[in-house]
Amino acid sequence: MKNTDLTRKLNFNAGPAALPIEVLQQAAAAVLDYNNSGLSILEIPHRGAAFVAIMDESRQLVKELCNLNDDYEVLWLQGGGRMQFCMIPMNFLGETESAGYVDSGYWAESAYKAAKYYGNAQLLASTKDINYTHLPKWPSQLPAGLQYVHCTTNNTIYGTQLHTTPACDVPLIADMSSDIFSCHRNYTKYAMFYATVQKNLGAAGVTLVVLRKDFMQRVKRTMPDMLTYKAHAAQQSMLNTPPVFAIYVSLLMLRWTKARGINAIDIENRKKAQLLYSEIERNSVFKPVVDSITDRSMMNVCFIANDSRNEKAFTDFCATRNITGIKGHRSVGGFRVSLYNAVNLAAVETLVQAMQDFEKE
Amino acid sequence: MKNTDLTRKLNFNAGPAALPIEVLQQAAAAVLDYNNSGLSILEIPHRGAAFVAIMDESRQLVKELCNLNDDYEVLWLQGGGRMQFCMIPMNFLGETESAGYVDSGYWAESAYKAAKYYGNAQLLASTKDINYTHLPKWPSQLPAGLQYVHCTTNNTIYGTQLHTTPACDVPLIADMSSDIFSCHRNYTKYAMFYATVQKNLGAAGVTLVVLRKDFMQRVKRTMPDMLTYKAHAAQQSMLNTPPVFAIYVSLLMLRWTKARGINAIDIENRKKAQLLYSEIERNSVFKPVVDSITDRSMMNVCFIANDSRNEKAFTDFCATRNITGIKGHRSVGGFRVSLYNAVNLAAVETLVQAMQDFEKE
Repeated sequence: MKNTDLTRKLNFNAGPAALPIEVLQQAAAAVLDYNNSGLSILEIPHRGAAFVAIMDESRQLVKELCNLNDDYEVLWLQGGGRMQFCMIPMNFLGETESAGYVDSGYWAESAYKAAKYYGNAQLLASTKDINYTHLPKWPSQLPAGLQYVHCTTNNTIYGTQLHTTPACDVPLIADMSSDIFSCHRNYTKYAMFYATVQKNLGAAGVTLVVLRKDFMQRVKRTMPDMLTYKAHAAQQSMLNTPPVFAIYVSLLMLRWTKARGINAIDIENRKKAQLLYSEIERNSVFKPVVDSITDRSMMNVCFIANDSRNEKAFTDFCATRNITGIKGHRSVGGFRVSLYNAVNLAAVETLVQAMQDFEKE
Repeated sequence: MKNTDLTRKLNFNAGPAALPIEVLQQAAAAVLDYNNSGLSILEIPHRGAAFVAIMDESRQLVKELCNLNDDYEVLWLQGGGRMQFCMIPMNFLGETESAGYVDSGYWAESAYKAAKYYGNAQLLASTKDINYTHLPKWPSQLPAGLQYVHCTTNNTIYGTQLHTTPACDVPLIADMSSDIFSCHRNYTKYAMFYATVQKNLGAAGVTLVVLRKDFMQRVKRTMPDMLTYKAHAAQQSMLNTPPVFAIYVSLLMLRWTKARGINAIDIENRKKAQLLYSEIERNSVFKPVVDSITDRSMMNVCFIANDSRNEKAFTDFCATRNITGIKGHRSVGGFRVSLYNAVNLAAVETLVQAMQDFEKE
């Protein structure tokens, strides 16, 4: 298998990340003219039939891909994960109430820090002291009286991933920004989950938020509508002008995801990750960052060079082979290769070949 | 002058609104490949050199077009006007402090209502009781101790516009969503102004916020960074992943605006509005909504049919001439024709011709 579009880079960026060429082609065509309407997708009115249909289909597809019934609400909101870090405690954590946070990385910790402004946010577990090189162990028993527990299913920076949903007898909220729709998952175990779309689900500019309708009603503050989930739900994510284009690209990604099927995606993602982790283990130049094999992420593979001088050399070597986006986050160093759904097996094979050829040189 | 691209509709929508065809063409090309990078604009990393250059140029062009020096900060934020309605009082209105709001329409009132959650928001003037058919008269003397005064320069729904900046001896904040860059304006009279971009400045999904650096520091609450302007400024609007594509389209619009020049835009906008208002006054079928000629908007022209049965008939008549987006907001009825910068004089001439032909029939 070869990459057939030679003008396109092999893009392993962590997000914004690679998108399928067919999605890009449809998006570009819609920017010129949406569906032969004589208007660009950037110009269509958000309350017109064309966009309402986009919204309806996108909500339906999210529920279908997650196997969720009408007990759940699907929202498209702005502000990224960080706005969710604020809105979650604003909505669901009263000033004198408690919520639990599992700190598995920078973003998980940021969610915890934001919640502290609004109530008693408690750290349930953290691996910050070892720079998040493995996942924190959840407490066997939760403190009493938690309004919810917040976790992050995949830690983009550190290359760790929660492969099974921990048992949790209070409402569980998860940031799934970097692994939504990448694998089988029982979404009904979550009271709420959310994902910024620029990894597996579209182009930066919108955040998918899914929550149980009964949980959504538990609002603990009087606030402007803009900050409450239930007001967004009542207006079907059109409390004000939604980011039309970003939602449309997410719809294209949802259609693409459905056409491939979560099962096939899950299988291919395992193949991609196995191929790359095996090569890292085998290759004398590199070593993995995450020791615990069970904690390793299928989405972001972090590794370093045994000799740090080889890091720039290998990056330059990759550039000559049209490979981009492999630099690790500054807090970890080395390399981070993101294997989101739109990155195909052929791209990983090309990278692995480069690792082998680099080792020979 | 004729519209040369016959496949495109003449789009008078209030926002999302018409964009110049050359901007759409550049945006579509970038979705396929940004600047021969081998990556789509939807795929480039937001901390990479290509996007940092987009951000830098966009900030510089905003300052240039507004004649602002480095005392001002330019931010690109998510959440639209409604998030600004929250962030303004969160940042600048202490719980026991006062701020003044001028209520010139639905959006102005929404800003006032949001502020009431955070402090003593005072209504300085309102024309709500007459359905905003003219602008409210500002008080000759402001109440003592206001932290700021908030106003809306153009009222999209009602077709009124503030053509001169009122004298104000406290920091003045303005929502300029629907008339920014449409006319000459002394932006230095404002401590802060903001605009959702989907009218004169791009595609829905980002909000331009400009504020004086000294004013920005007056934060009245401890809050997560995501909710404070100064944290966004410290991170150059990259506190988290920005809406890359929306900012890029706004940059294209800024370049287009600069190439035409505010002076030429101002002159053409007056011509367009004069042509349409004159026809409404002359034509026996229609009458204007806003009586006060000095309050009439150059951006959104609202009118009704003398015989309401003609409203659907005229809309259908326009549809046969490729004209779209003229329906008035449900709270006003009739017609609303938006004449944003990207709507050219030829489009208005076509509409006026349709009005004349409809009258003859």
